[in-house]
Amino acid sequence: MKTDIEISQAIDLLPIKKVAQSIDLTNNDLELFGKYKAKIDFSTIQRLSKNQEGKLILVTSINPTPAGEGKSTVTIGLGDALNLIGKKTVIALREPSLGPVMGIKGGATGGGYAQLLPMEEINLHFTGDMHAITTANNALSALLDNHIQQGNELGIDVRRIIWKRVVDLNDRALRHVNVGLGGPTQGMPREDGFDITVASEIMAILCLAADLEDLKFRLGNIVIGYTFDREPVSVSDLGVQGALTLLLKEAIKPNLVQTIYGTAAFIHGGPFANIAHGCNSIIATKTALKLGDYVVTEAGFGADLGGEKFLDIKVPNLKKAPDAVVIVATIRALKMHGGVDKKELNTEDVSAMAKGFSNLQKHIENIKSYGLPVVVAINEFINDSENEIVALRELCQSIDVPVELTSVWEKGAQGGVALAKRVTQVIEEQTADFKTIYQNGMNLEDKIKTIVTKIYGGNHVVFSKKARNQLATFEKYGWDRLPVCMAKTQYSLSDDPQKLGRPVGFTITIRELVPKIGAGFIVALTGDVMTMPGLPKKPAALNMDVDKDGNAIGLF
Amino acid sequence: MKTDIEISQAIDLLPIKKVAQSIDLTNNDLELFGKYKAKIDFSTIQRLSKNQEGKLILVTSINPTPAGEGKSTVTIGLGDALNLIGKKTVIALREPSLGPVMGIKGGATGGGYAQLLPMEEINLHFTGDMHAITTANNALSALLDNHIQQGNELGIDVRRIIWKRVVDLNDRALRHVNVGLGGPTQGMPREDGFDITVASEIMAILCLAADLEDLKFRLGNIVIGYTFDREPVSVSDLGVQGALTLLLKEAIKPNLVQTIYGTAAFIHGGPFANIAHGCNSIIATKTALKLGDYVVTEAGFGADLGGEKFLDIKVPNLKKAPDAVVIVATIRALKMHGGVDKKELNTEDVSAMAKGFSNLQKHIENIKSYGLPVVVAINEFINDSENEIVALRELCQSIDVPVELTSVWEKGAQGGVALAKRVTQVIEEQTADFKTIYQNGMNLEDKIKTIVTKIYGGNHVVFSKKARNQLATFEKYGWDRLPVCMAKTQYSLSDDPQKLGRPVGFTITIRELVPKIGAGFIVALTGDVMTMPGLPKKPAALNMDVDKDGNAIGLF
Repeated sequence: MKTDIEISQAIDLLPIKKVAQSIDLTNNDLELFGKYKAKIDFSTIQRLSKNQEGKLILVTSINPTPAGEGKSTVTIGLGDALNLIGKKTVIALREPSLGPVMGIKGGATGGGYAQLLPMEEINLHFTGDMHAITTANNALSALLDNHIQQGNELGIDVRRIIWKRVVDLNDRALRHVNVGLGGPTQGMPREDGFDITVASEIMAILCLAADLEDLKFRLGNIVIGYTFDREPVSVSDLGVQGALTLLLKEAIKPNLVQTIYGTAAFIHGGPFANIAHGCNSIIATKTALKLGDYVVTEAGFGADLGGEKFLDIKVPNLKKAPDAVVIVATIRALKMHGGVDKKELNTEDVSAMAKGFSNLQKHIENIKSYGLPVVVAINEFINDSENEIVALRELCQSIDVPVELTSVWEKGAQGGVALAKRVTQVIEEQTADFKTIYQNGMNLEDKIKTIVTKIYGGNHVVFSKKARNQLATFEKYGWDRLPVCMAKTQYSLSDDPQKLGRPVGFTITIRELVPKIGAGFIVALTGDVMTMPGLPKKPAALNMDVDKDGNAIGLF
Repeated sequence: MKTDIEISQAIDLLPIKKVAQSIDLTNNDLELFGKYKAKIDFSTIQRLSKNQEGKLILVTSINPTPAGEGKSTVTIGLGDALNLIGKKTVIALREPSLGPVMGIKGGATGGGYAQLLPMEEINLHFTGDMHAITTANNALSALLDNHIQQGNELGIDVRRIIWKRVVDLNDRALRHVNVGLGGPTQGMPREDGFDITVASEIMAILCLAADLEDLKFRLGNIVIGYTFDREPVSVSDLGVQGALTLLLKEAIKPNLVQTIYGTAAFIHGGPFANIAHGCNSIIATKTALKLGDYVVTEAGFGADLGGEKFLDIKVPNLKKAPDAVVIVATIRALKMHGGVDKKELNTEDVSAMAKGFSNLQKHIENIKSYGLPVVVAINEFINDSENEIVALRELCQSIDVPVELTSVWEKGAQGGVALAKRVTQVIEEQTADFKTIYQNGMNLEDKIKTIVTKIYGGNHVVFSKKARNQLATFEKYGWDRLPVCMAKTQYSLSDDPQKLGRPVGFTITIRELVPKIGAGFIVALTGDVMTMPGLPKKPAALNMDVDKDGNAIGLF
């Protein structure tokens, strides 16, 4: 069996200019980064704004198992398959974070014969977007600490700073740090911490901004902490939104790459799906929509978490709803949801799978409640049995949802043709009638309650004392009508990762609210949310190397 | 008067392919970054290795004043002037660090009509080299802290870790930090600190490495701290030199840009001239030498500090000595060395200038002691008087050193023609007979004494108790025959920034030695050395912005 990197290194890539031509872009539209990567110019994006928009296909999934359900792989394979059946299709996806690449994942550009290329470069520094975000985030921290050191004219309370520094690495030792130590010339001592770059509010902002002006406006709105009088302090109070925008002026341009089959893919931005909304940039999706008759994109985690946030946060900013939603499921994961132990997943168990189907069914109902057509994609694994697959097909048919098997990991574009045909058929036959699950006029408490009862299937929401106080304070600050960005475990519809399947009658506890005023939403934390991962005992980095010609070893 | 950014934005840049053609590179040799920047491929560097090498011109200076003597500007202008008089010339310089750009400098790509372009991009993220170095440095920290957290098999003493984290920002609050706080799952608590990226040993390594293999070898040699048994621990003990090399495999490729006059310039690497050796990469200088009949390059700070390290550290690695050395002086700075107050520098004072000439004279003698031909360049300022200039010319002639006035800042290439003609004449007429100031067979103590007495003109060296102990320990570890990298104030030949002119009879105190085993030298600290600058009360960032078309505002 070939590894992902072996497959990718055996491919003759098209020059990115050829890929661009396939979606009617010319050389003048491109800022080349080597032969196989390019950024798209502002002038091009402006010119394209007159184009009609293609159909949008959102790929999401059931509650995943720790290994993931292959959602990115299906997204890429579906894009390739749509092109194969003659539909002009563009893919829009997130860019990988170096932290997980060096830690556990080793790479995050699809897998098998559904991969983004050049995988090495996309997985390493790519076009520098992550680094620009890291730099802007930390420049803000440096300017903030300098403001305090130079007299603290704004009266910022160092005990109430909520802006953290970031690195694009998994580094648990930086979660909680003390800075400004060493005496009066070395800054004001205070507690601080580092998140991973993809958890930075600046990442969320970059992904929601409509253009450079909107980016600057949102950066100015970031609340970094509070004064001694408990008034919020924003970046515009520090007067550095211009400098931050300057640092991000290249990063906001979408990146064009290709799949193994030469399908055009915009890979741009990658906010964490827990602390943020978890999907690629508005600008990339918008650009893709102006160029493709079909656009395939992905939301992080399951349909309850990333899917909900795509629909309730990204869609209103994008001003375009999906025309169809693909929910990815695997037989393995459904068996886990049906109670099968992790070690037994390779053994046929139709009844457990049928029991676990309840999880998929809830997600199907949810997506339909948004007024959107659904297609189920069974991402095939080698140990799936024919009986299990037949049973899953029947279960889907029993609730009148189209279902197709995909094997793009093994077979590439050809393995996704059935799904591609089914999705286009659904789009042609059904009309999406999209509505968000809540209205912006509702307050934060009601929005959270709506998500918990309608999407998660819970009964009650409990707010901690802290969160309850915050609801009152945020109302005072005028933040109570902002959208909600739920931060919850991805493994369960509830806030308890152990509750698999379709739990009912549960209560969700809101521990804390986090204002992300620049991004334009309030994060509601349920349980512990990891904003800085750690490294495992044997990190992927231990196997990484370079051969004499500069080729990567150990990315997979 | 136009600002630097106004001048640069008014220039029609050549496509970088045209610049490449002018030095006999083809499109295939380039990895494009947009239209005006490119990296040079490994295969090209290998192919070029058969070429003959051009003449190397090193630009250095007297002990500078806080405003700098315009050394980079003269380097760029001399390159342009050499091309103007028909000499095929390539420039090799350091890349700017974002910290000073956002802090005080606003930009570091020359000035006036002697500038590197595109100045905005070179000053901001450029081709991502700094970010790659930051990432590699901090990945090592994360992997090190993870090793300790996961059982500390190597027995690393957290009190004796010497590897620090970095950001490419001026951020004093990060100089001294505590990391690993928050309990047993959040890492091992320990003291740490952040340097600016250009002070990272990885930056020094990248700039001294001959190729990718040498880079990996040197990365493996980095000593990150000591065990509880006081044995040094290196990166190869952690087994992550491959991963670090992977993160740097693009950053090690030299970057090609152009001057206002279209002269080809390799801008690559930028180690701090205090804690490291302070000049651009070996690979960039080597590549330039293979392509140009003349190469103009620069060493950081004055001839006593950056110049000495260029000659004693870089040259043995480059395996090529300068064919001529240009020492830049300004009338203003010589008057300061002659005792004139900062506020009075615009007033004519021939006798003070003549007194301050002693500083220039010492540097001339030093460079001649290396067996190298010297040319003095007077970098003209608007308030220089004719009498002062005539007097300085006579003083140089009295000690038989060629001297030329340059005005490249105001007049561009034309303003450097006299200097260019003089330098080429000197190279044609005189033969360099280079020898380093010390032999590698000497131990650290003797090397330091040699530099202090021969180059600085001091009488004695005092080692602190700590440094004295280190001399013994380093001998035990086998590090006592490595070259010395002096860390000293740039403002004086002595270790006291107040001692201007040509101080005599002074003692230099070596406070501490810092092993940089990967870079291959031992840093000798005299006095306080700043490895993380702070921001001023009104940082340059406050004036930075972007216009609607994405053009930078506030870089200067």
